[in-house]
Amino acid sequence: MSTVDRLTKAQFQVERILEAFKQKSINNVFYVACGGSSALMYPSKYFIDRESSNITAEIYSSNEFIYRNPKSLGADSLVILCSHKGKTPETTDAAHFAKSKGALVVSLMYVDTAPLADESDFIVNYSWAPPGELDPLPEIMNYSILYRLTMGLLYVQEGNELYLKLLSSLENMDTVLEKAKVQYLAPAKAFAAEYKDEKIMYTMASGSNYGIAYSFAICILMEMQWIHSHAIHAGEFFHGPFEILDKNVPFILLMGLDETRPMEERALKFLKEHGEKMLVIDAEQFDLTGIEEEVKGYIAPLVMNLVLRVYAVELAKATGHPLEERRYMFKVPY
Amino acid sequence: MSTVDRLTKAQFQVERILEAFKQKSINNVFYVACGGSSALMYPSKYFIDRESSNITAEIYSSNEFIYRNPKSLGADSLVILCSHKGKTPETTDAAHFAKSKGALVVSLMYVDTAPLADESDFIVNYSWAPPGELDPLPEIMNYSILYRLTMGLLYVQEGNELYLKLLSSLENMDTVLEKAKVQYLAPAKAFAAEYKDEKIMYTMASGSNYGIAYSFAICILMEMQWIHSHAIHAGEFFHGPFEILDKNVPFILLMGLDETRPMEERALKFLKEHGEKMLVIDAEQFDLTGIEEEVKGYIAPLVMNLVLRVYAVELAKATGHPLEERRYMFKVPY
Repeated sequence: MSTVDRLTKAQFQVERILEAFKQKSINNVFYVACGGSSALMYPSKYFIDRESSNITAEIYSSNEFIYRNPKSLGADSLVILCSHKGKTPETTDAAHFAKSKGALVVSLMYVDTAPLADESDFIVNYSWAPPGELDPLPEIMNYSILYRLTMGLLYVQEGNELYLKLLSSLENMDTVLEKAKVQYLAPAKAFAAEYKDEKIMYTMASGSNYGIAYSFAICILMEMQWIHSHAIHAGEFFHGPFEILDKNVPFILLMGLDETRPMEERALKFLKEHGEKMLVIDAEQFDLTGIEEEVKGYIAPLVMNLVLRVYAVELAKATGHPLEERRYMFKVPY
Repeated sequence: MSTVDRLTKAQFQVERILEAFKQKSINNVFYVACGGSSALMYPSKYFIDRESSNITAEIYSSNEFIYRNPKSLGADSLVILCSHKGKTPETTDAAHFAKSKGALVVSLMYVDTAPLADESDFIVNYSWAPPGELDPLPEIMNYSILYRLTMGLLYVQEGNELYLKLLSSLENMDTVLEKAKVQYLAPAKAFAAEYKDEKIMYTMASGSNYGIAYSFAICILMEMQWIHSHAIHAGEFFHGPFEILDKNVPFILLMGLDETRPMEERALKFLKEHGEKMLVIDAEQFDLTGIEEEVKGYIAPLVMNLVLRVYAVELAKATGHPLEERRYMFKVPY
């Protein structure tokens, strides 16, 4: 499928789902997925928390969702799931479970169809590129689709017009990401050369950026580089975790543009005072030309994610541990 | 104050709050605190998720709560906060913020009064004992108070009778904890001797037990022992984090009695197949005589918490790093 066709298809899929939202009362949204697919839902929950007084949002790992069996899951629920190849068994089971409770079930996947699609009312096929490569269609990458659905929900049900700001901003995402990739290539190479022998690296963020920190910790560092890691919330840092800090412990701090930035700034101050090894990705340094002012805080984590992928590629080159190497995933039974 | 007086006082404080719940419509509960005080609220959220279709529950670190500024926070909200000495500035600010939004504000603290009390509609003074010591009044320890308030809310607003099962069970908590302490003392000494030189230890759990894993990771290992750690969700483990596992990486796995146990069992199987260093705390081995069957899943994390405190004390003895030692907390500005 050509990129134009792929774009048209995804936009059409989203439009159909927004039409379905108009026909239905939705009280709560459950974001359900595993690992990296779950991490990319955090910014959307942040949006609902800030913007809606009538709709609540929860994020659950797929099996936690099933076993926890939230009592508020029902006919007034929207369940949004994601699995890259649509074959994660827990997520397919979660879609089946959600449908059995009468919820509206929407699933995101990169592939055209898969078991997860069969258990869903609607699907959206997002665009994707491997770490470090530029997605030809960032306006329909997974994070963008999640915002289209989430902000679209609040647009059709509550008249929230940030959705329109999102749409016009997404049209410029390709140039924003292109510029970010160029800007961070040299710093990423320098970081990789300096940190390639580290055995542990913590990540830290707050608000809409926390999911990006979580994703980098569990998917890139732990899964793809076998480097110990943990995503620390920048506010929680001061209530236990900061005692681990010394001049030999590396931290990757994400500084976004949303309302929680003061927490990330406080963490930065402390890291500078008591630590020595740190990488700070500060969204204030991004060129966000073309992104509407009102949604910059929401868009920043999407750019951060691309930037961190650039770092991941350079880190893998420096460590000599390919990002594709696994010892367990898809290799042994689990 | 005598222990009898303390018990009477806390029970009276809870009763007054339940009376206030009767006078008010509550749609959502926000659990707001920092670090260990936040971790102890996870089981209560699990209870609301499973038991109520009308009331939602959120957990936020205090500053995240303020900056995120959830739009659903308002006159129909209950905000439950906790700070051991009632002096955590972020939590006092959060109480002030919650009151400004019209919410009902209930704060837990160990001390009789403190700045947090001044910003709250109601307070409860819980009982507490240092790590490894038996609380003389476990029926009003912080976890118990949180359940009394949470299950009590669903009792007075929705007629949920698990509250009554809780009350009769809490009367027997002292003997349950006494037995657990005796049972785990020797295993804790053996663990400490074997693991005292480890530089990193992951914790893992799911459902109502996850907060206990989080608390042990950030408060005991990172804060009090300067050992690298991270609480991994037992379901998320298989979607990234498990790639870090080899025969040299220690995991502390908590196995509870709630509905999410299959995830913890799956993790155990994998740890046994691919790891070597592990500590498994399995609630099936607790003597829960006196705890009602229907609330055993909810009570298990409270027993686990005590058991892990026994391990903490023995670990500190073996490492020679006192649990009280800090380099930053209450020592430097932050």
